[in-house]
Amino acid sequence: MRILTGLQPSGKLHIGNYFGAVQPAVELQDQGDAFYFLADYHAMTSMTDAVTLRANVQDLAIDFLACGLDPEKATIFRQSDIPEVNELAWILSTVCPMGLLERCTSYKDKVAKGISANHALFAYPALMAADILLYDANIVPVGKDQKQHVEVTRDLAQKINDKFGEGTLTVPEVQIRENTAVVPGIDGQKMSKSYGNTIPLSGGKKAIRKTIMRIVTDSTAVEDPKATEGSNIIALYKLFADEAALNQMIAEHEAGGFGYGHFKQTLFDAYWEHFSAIREKREELENNLDYVNGVIAKGAERARAESTKVLDRVRKAVGLR
Amino acid sequence: MRILTGLQPSGKLHIGNYFGAVQPAVELQDQGDAFYFLADYHAMTSMTDAVTLRANVQDLAIDFLACGLDPEKATIFRQSDIPEVNELAWILSTVCPMGLLERCTSYKDKVAKGISANHALFAYPALMAADILLYDANIVPVGKDQKQHVEVTRDLAQKINDKFGEGTLTVPEVQIRENTAVVPGIDGQKMSKSYGNTIPLSGGKKAIRKTIMRIVTDSTAVEDPKATEGSNIIALYKLFADEAALNQMIAEHEAGGFGYGHFKQTLFDAYWEHFSAIREKREELENNLDYVNGVIAKGAERARAESTKVLDRVRKAVGLR
Repeated sequence: MRILTGLQPSGKLHIGNYFGAVQPAVELQDQGDAFYFLADYHAMTSMTDAVTLRANVQDLAIDFLACGLDPEKATIFRQSDIPEVNELAWILSTVCPMGLLERCTSYKDKVAKGISANHALFAYPALMAADILLYDANIVPVGKDQKQHVEVTRDLAQKINDKFGEGTLTVPEVQIRENTAVVPGIDGQKMSKSYGNTIPLSGGKKAIRKTIMRIVTDSTAVEDPKATEGSNIIALYKLFADEAALNQMIAEHEAGGFGYGHFKQTLFDAYWEHFSAIREKREELENNLDYVNGVIAKGAERARAESTKVLDRVRKAVGLR
Repeated sequence: MRILTGLQPSGKLHIGNYFGAVQPAVELQDQGDAFYFLADYHAMTSMTDAVTLRANVQDLAIDFLACGLDPEKATIFRQSDIPEVNELAWILSTVCPMGLLERCTSYKDKVAKGISANHALFAYPALMAADILLYDANIVPVGKDQKQHVEVTRDLAQKINDKFGEGTLTVPEVQIRENTAVVPGIDGQKMSKSYGNTIPLSGGKKAIRKTIMRIVTDSTAVEDPKATEGSNIIALYKLFADEAALNQMIAEHEAGGFGYGHFKQTLFDAYWEHFSAIREKREELENNLDYVNGVIAKGAERARAESTKVLDRVRKAVGLR
């Protein structure tokens, strides 16, 4: 069973990425043949310079490895190391009704947010379908917001099979990550780079403490009991703390006599402790870029072995070369 | 100076293709470094089976060679032998405003004609731009209907250069084939496969004679003088006949006493004579497919040498691999 997931190298990972995508990916690598790719073609839809893109790709690879993705178990590769994915995207486009892409809400949302409507953004679901289908993926674990894109993928695979023969492409199953924690940003909205409310996964102690100290709270006085429902601090603390520690923080909220600064410090200490192993591993990897680049090169080889098989089958079916 | 032209392998060539595209291409091969490609990715937008697509590609290569394209002078290659063209199309898409594609009249026309709107048809100008830019083409000779697509190409090349550095892509010049003959079909409309009014470039004598005998004329009686203005027979005869023969046919029209059957027979004889060398060469090539396939393989090598250079430059500039 092949499991496939991609992540865009669009800057430093934050803990929302970690709990929402990376940690589930780490768990999944023991449950099947996992393919994880660094989606640099996709990142190009919103990036403008070569140096940043290259740095982000390497950074994301380091994050993957630091968080526990094991290159002996999972295939970690860079999307653009297998440029043939664009060929499959073209082939899929020939059976892709315009309406299918026009209905994709993520495109409509981005345009509504004022992101300039370029063709790559519009064609994104066709390339994403190729990302999945090029590796005969069986399971695609995604957040709810990506569900529609996997449905487009299934639809296109089925159309190719109808037209050119059953079995030309493997129709994948979507797996919605239902039970991943909702990670609020420091302003209480969903943590997202585009809201500027993130807590990074790695970085200097002082800067991160400062960020955590900026978490939005209400203005209850120190001596009064504090609401636990809707508290951003508690929602974040849940992610790191064991049950006893969490219960203690809840009790302290209810008792009163503790200021928000105290709770934020507790949260920061837990954060710092929780990610210490990842931080150390990260530092180690940053000093061993040859190893990191070796993992990416090895991943490309393994990905290519699969993509070649699939693409040969597709080309034969549709009549190319 | 590199000259680039592509032709879709969408079935047997007709004499409209010959006079409009192939003959000018033959002339151009002496004026620069000519690249001619068999556009099988584009043909996929309107084709549904592998066997036909493969046969058409081979057929078009045979036509190219039979008509006088010289593989020692020109690089003749199959588009899908360089699948990286799709990667460049993606890169171009990231700087391609949706409006640029939406305004392309060829897409609007096809949709208006009832051709189902698939994404490949919409994205066609982005792939065509990549076809041109991947080989650093300087001159793109096209019919008037393709002028807009070359303008899109220039526009995208300039956008990439603005964003990622001057010289990343070569901005090509369009060359409109102004002086190519207008070739009417047997019904008097422009000769086009989609109108079902074509006279094929090759085929059996009986069938082609029958087609020519079906040319639409008015119903002037045999004994009366016949209009030369607007005569499909004369318009077609002009393409094959020398001046003396043409003048004779015009004189016979004006004199009266000759039926249209007579003129059609004269036209057919001239057609048959005109294409006899091409026909013979064609037959020879059909019996020597190894040679034809060798030409395509050699063309792929030469095309790849160029595409690799350009794509390395582009990848470096935009930050891929």
